[in-house]
Amino acid sequence: MAARHSVAHLSRRAAGAVACTPLRSSWLAKDLTLQARTFATPVPPVTQNAAGSKGPTAMVFLNMGGPSTVDEVEDFLRRLFQDGDLIPLGRLQNYIGNFISSRRTPKIQKQYAEIGGGSPIRKWSEYQNAEMCKLLDRISPETAPHKPYVAFRYANPLTEEMYNKLLDDGFGNGKGGRAVAFTQYPQYSCSTTGSSLNELWKWRQRLEGKAGPGTIQWSVIDRWPVHPGLVDAFASNIEKTLAEYPEDRRREAVLLFSAHSLPMTVVNRGDPYPAEVAATVYAVMQRLKFSNPYRLCWQSQVGPQPWLGPQTQTSVEEYISKGQKDLVLIPIAFTSDHIETLFELDKEVIGESGHADTVKRIESLNGNPIFIKALADLAKSHLGSGTVCSHQMGLRCPGCKSERCAESKKFFAGVESSLTV
Amino acid sequence: MAARHSVAHLSRRAAGAVACTPLRSSWLAKDLTLQARTFATPVPPVTQNAAGSKGPTAMVFLNMGGPSTVDEVEDFLRRLFQDGDLIPLGRLQNYIGNFISSRRTPKIQKQYAEIGGGSPIRKWSEYQNAEMCKLLDRISPETAPHKPYVAFRYANPLTEEMYNKLLDDGFGNGKGGRAVAFTQYPQYSCSTTGSSLNELWKWRQRLEGKAGPGTIQWSVIDRWPVHPGLVDAFASNIEKTLAEYPEDRRREAVLLFSAHSLPMTVVNRGDPYPAEVAATVYAVMQRLKFSNPYRLCWQSQVGPQPWLGPQTQTSVEEYISKGQKDLVLIPIAFTSDHIETLFELDKEVIGESGHADTVKRIESLNGNPIFIKALADLAKSHLGSGTVCSHQMGLRCPGCKSERCAESKKFFAGVESSLTV
Repeated sequence: MAARHSVAHLSRRAAGAVACTPLRSSWLAKDLTLQARTFATPVPPVTQNAAGSKGPTAMVFLNMGGPSTVDEVEDFLRRLFQDGDLIPLGRLQNYIGNFISSRRTPKIQKQYAEIGGGSPIRKWSEYQNAEMCKLLDRISPETAPHKPYVAFRYANPLTEEMYNKLLDDGFGNGKGGRAVAFTQYPQYSCSTTGSSLNELWKWRQRLEGKAGPGTIQWSVIDRWPVHPGLVDAFASNIEKTLAEYPEDRRREAVLLFSAHSLPMTVVNRGDPYPAEVAATVYAVMQRLKFSNPYRLCWQSQVGPQPWLGPQTQTSVEEYISKGQKDLVLIPIAFTSDHIETLFELDKEVIGESGHADTVKRIESLNGNPIFIKALADLAKSHLGSGTVCSHQMGLRCPGCKSERCAESKKFFAGVESSLTV
Repeated sequence: MAARHSVAHLSRRAAGAVACTPLRSSWLAKDLTLQARTFATPVPPVTQNAAGSKGPTAMVFLNMGGPSTVDEVEDFLRRLFQDGDLIPLGRLQNYIGNFISSRRTPKIQKQYAEIGGGSPIRKWSEYQNAEMCKLLDRISPETAPHKPYVAFRYANPLTEEMYNKLLDDGFGNGKGGRAVAFTQYPQYSCSTTGSSLNELWKWRQRLEGKAGPGTIQWSVIDRWPVHPGLVDAFASNIEKTLAEYPEDRRREAVLLFSAHSLPMTVVNRGDPYPAEVAATVYAVMQRLKFSNPYRLCWQSQVGPQPWLGPQTQTSVEEYISKGQKDLVLIPIAFTSDHIETLFELDKEVIGESGHADTVKRIESLNGNPIFIKALADLAKSHLGSGTVCSHQMGLRCPGCKSERCAESKKFFAGVESSLTV
């Protein structure tokens, strides 16, 4: 399928390769200056509104995704364990990845069956994005209309599918147009957002070739760990859960923030994720005026190699054994429900704690209007900022050896490419 | 010496044990209510100013300390490696600690000789505290006079020496009086501030017995990772160093925040330090408006067991090998110069980088007036807050097995002791 689409779109791209546009924002202008050295006579792309709007703008949500049905579990796991950006397994990545995913499939299928037959992440992502785009059309008319797309790393809709949809919808193919890659991981990790961007870059190269006139102009919202709306959405959900405890016990409930862990090889390579997760936690505690004692724990460790701790499940067991049974679990690095909340936290950590009445989990952000407004605010300020990505994104991890990462960063950092080391 | 002082002060305490005071702030009032169940007829302590001031107030700076002379290195290292709160070596702690410190002494003596014959940490701590107390006398007259004390964990003046000085100066011994244990580690770790507080609690028990009328009323400033004055002091020093780079390279210099690392056993136990260090880093970057790309690294790993990374020295080498030679080192978890800045960063990391002209370290906070004002603001707001310590301090780490830690937290958390799990 990949090859078929590649050929089709490469020929369409070739046909439209003369079109280019003098867009208004400064980075695009600079980019154009560079392009102008190669390509003459730029003309406005057909998708742009000559009356004033720079739209349409494609808003592309990036996330890991999850199998919507039990049948999709095997493919999902295979892609996941074959991703060296996520789980580095060395030169035998594909072989070992296949082996692990085949072995784990029956167990994980059972878990998805227990949470209703599939992950709700696609439903929530599509809902959040559609709602955000509606808000954006109102608050950012100059980039309207905003069109929602979802690109998952390991499940449908995959990046390739999204990219082809973009092209089919009139972006690129000589007509240019702007697309924003909006990571739905608030905190940046090379193994999450980084992996999604590497995948996006790969499909960009395959389907559009290098940046040039008439190709899609990408910019990236690559991290937003302390956005006030995000922080407020988490904090208000925590307050709701705290209100369920009797008043005399409420202030003493321990808040256990839980984020997906990383292998220590990734942490020690210099991945920015642990520090950004901690920044979110601190911002939420500031918003709560440090009403409760708290700790940051890490969940979902797999396999025998060392991962970052303390582990969420162990921490819950240890607090309970110390007599602290009022515990509030807060999934702090994911914005909608998925197997790690619905199965791992609810059924394993809470279900097996022996205190399901006093160990609680806050609701995930899902359709929370505070959160969706935060997404729109973030997107609006990005669209108006004239930046292609954060200054931070151009910097590789000190221990990074991935050429794919270097190239992908160079591409997305665009005019900031001199920062890519 | 310990035994001699203990006996002397225990008898003085016994002589003055009838004195107790109805102090004004709410936590002291609550504390008194508890005491009132046991002790009758509280009378004002002789050290209090009946005209309105609650002073004198002892301001006790807690820190690890460092040997002021090369001759003190051996004792310093012995205490350090014998501290199971800092470097957990199990049941043979004292034996192994002695062995390691004896072996390391000649090497470390040489390092101290190279930085001028000793650590400047005592000089800076005494200066910072004296200057802070002068400011406090002006901005917090109701708790004046403020008297500066320093208690180091591994070097002179040790906690025992400080406590005896407090008693000699008229605190305790039936006369009560208020003392604030003010950690000079902005971010809390069980192995730093926790260890200092455990030591303070030990000497409190030995020299004054349990809390009772006429003993010193302790409260604790236990962490202040994002205090605006601290953040501003770091940020302005970073700006000064950035200004040394040619303008066209300035924005691309990489900021490498460096904090003392922790063994993974401590991290995985649930120590709050890595997350609080990350909070400081994020706050400084916010203050700098994310002007530069950055990473958080960890330094000073010792021995064969796994420590938290990425390592500072390795990161510097790796960035240089990627062609990024403009690097700004920022010691983010220490407030004055010490061997880790003057020797490890300056002589080892920078000195051996081959690029001592472009790899730079920001000045430590030392006598920085912005920093000293921050200390005074922090202390004033603590003194007026009516809190004995942060709500967070009462919570033990999930994996904590230390009874000393449990008891010490119970003591310091005072009226909040029900939070100690």
